[in-house]
Amino acid sequence: MHPAPPSGLFDGPLHLFAVRAYYEDTDLSGVVYHANYLKWFERARSDMLRLLGIDQRAAVEAGEGAYAVADLAIRYRAPARLDDAVTIASRATELGAASVRLIQRALRRAEGPDELLAEATIRVGFVAPDGRPRRQPAAWRAAFQTLMNPEDPA
Amino acid sequence: MHPAPPSGLFDGPLHLFAVRAYYEDTDLSGVVYHANYLKWFERARSDMLRLLGIDQRAAVEAGEGAYAVADLAIRYRAPARLDDAVTIASRATELGAASVRLIQRALRRAEGPDELLAEATIRVGFVAPDGRPRRQPAAWRAAFQTLMNPEDPA
Amino acid sequence: MHPAPPSGLFDGPLHLFAVRAYYEDTDLSGVVYHANYLKWFERARSDMLRLLGIDQRAAVEAGEGAYAVADLAIRYRAPARLDDAVTIASRATELGAASVRLIQRALRRAEGPDELLAEATIRVGFVAPDGRPRRQPAAWRAAFQTLMNPEDPA
Amino acid sequence: MHPAPPSGLFDGPLHLFAVRAYYEDTDLSGVVYHANYLKWFERARSDMLRLLGIDQRAAVEAGEGAYAVADLAIRYRAPARLDDAVTIASRATELGAASVRLIQRALRRAEGPDELLAEATIRVGFVAPDGRPRRQPAAWRAAFQTLMNPEDPA
Repeated sequence: MHPAPPSGLFDGPLHLFAVRAYYEDTDLSGVVYHANYLKWFERARSDMLRLLGIDQRAAVEAGEGAYAVADLAIRYRAPARLDDAVTIASRATELGAASVRLIQRALRRAEGPDELLAEATIRVGFVAPDGRPRRQPAAWRAAFQTLMNPEDPA
Repeated sequence: MHPAPPSGLFDGPLHLFAVRAYYEDTDLSGVVYHANYLKWFERARSDMLRLLGIDQRAAVEAGEGAYAVADLAIRYRAPARLDDAVTIASRATELGAASVRLIQRALRRAEGPDELLAEATIRVGFVAPDGRPRRQPAAWRAAFQTLMNPEDPA
Repeated sequence: MHPAPPSGLFDGPLHLFAVRAYYEDTDLSGVVYHANYLKWFERARSDMLRLLGIDQRAAVEAGEGAYAVADLAIRYRAPARLDDAVTIASRATELGAASVRLIQRALRRAEGPDELLAEATIRVGFVAPDGRPRRQPAAWRAAFQTLMNPEDPA
Repeated sequence: MHPAPPSGLFDGPLHLFAVRAYYEDTDLSGVVYHANYLKWFERARSDMLRLLGIDQRAAVEAGEGAYAVADLAIRYRAPARLDDAVTIASRATELGAASVRLIQRALRRAEGPDELLAEATIRVGFVAPDGRPRRQPAAWRAAFQTLMNPEDPA
């Protein structure tokens, strides 16, 4: 009887995750506050990890570490509005020893082609609890490796 | 190919809506920050309105008004943690000319019975753009009326 | 040359802390989102602890524990708007072995008397990292004791 | 008796604004959540406008428009932790007909030189309520012009 909890899916190496714009996301200009797209993108990355079998919470609680955003660049194309259904499309593009780079887009479902709301490139690095960069766990790196095309840098 | 956007469902008069705890929801104590349960409850109320055919955004954009929280009381029973799947169960208990009272609970899915994380009573009032209480639109009130038991106060 | 970081002050046992409403605080209805008052109240409580010489971060990092909100009731009286200067007035009213109860009010500075925006009673309990209630550190309890009137329950 | 509401100051063309890290800003990794730096930067920009005599709220309420973030790039250097006093240093670097570009840095006060936590370049554009770019009001542009060096592009 319970509704299904939020979950995305993989379309090949592309991860798709759906969100909806609620009051909490908007500001008095009537549209979604710019920083809240980063929360949507982070939800999508967490869902991607979950689907890849990576248990972030266990890693934090065991003192191993966590991914932290190292840098990002985002361009806002069109504003999301209350009740909009938005798909976050994410794709890993580079895999390093301690970091992963992704491209993430927010797309509004529309009659006809989806409308691009925002697009970002984001680099996340694995960091130890003391904040220092650390090689990501081998199993995590292997999970991301399955998403990389043969021609992508590794 | 798109994943479904978040949507709850009605089990009779009980509205059920699923959320998941992400990084944005937690604080350094390792659990979900207390104010964020109110965001989850608001998402559930917005979803309830959407399923009832009430278009909040159109009402705001047309200058008719919006529901605003008038008062609430919440008791925290057990903390939600990262990645938890949480169901928000909501039930309207009183329907007035300008306000609706609801009981909302956050339940963690678990082996065996769900675990109660938090429960709240919340009264929302319809307010004009100038902030004054206003009778809720007749269609909105009628929609909520369908959720009230014959023995409930109206 | 640096501006002073946010800091409140005690007026006898009453703690006063100033915030301002920014874009992040508002929603599309044009006023401050209801859950964000709880963030303002939490900032004020954290400031109160800091002024009392209580180091929350050290307690969390040492694995001792932290205050968590156990329950609260809030009534919204008038909405805060962008750029409003709001004073959070907080007063401890009950001190137990593991918990503290406070009354907190959000007041808008105005010509004439301040305008009451919201008022809440909030009970915070000290909890161990595993989430169980724990007696608050003796020094913390003693610090709060200095704020209690002789006739208040202790 | 009231504490002063948050306010920054100008050191020549450089705007300085102080924030403090509270529970709401952190996540379970123990440090400030990456998206929350953008909220701090937005508070600083709003404060800059306020000090320049620009009334954002009046412009929104009059239906003139508002600044919206068009794009940004941010690099995270070191994490902020609970209770840290952080200064946001902002400087306008380009002024166009409909947009302003700024560099913003988050600096932790420390013994010795401040520690750089994050730095961003952010472009904000003035947009009409329908979301379309619009020339910013002449008085707003003139206010920003006072911050530009003669050798800066205008």
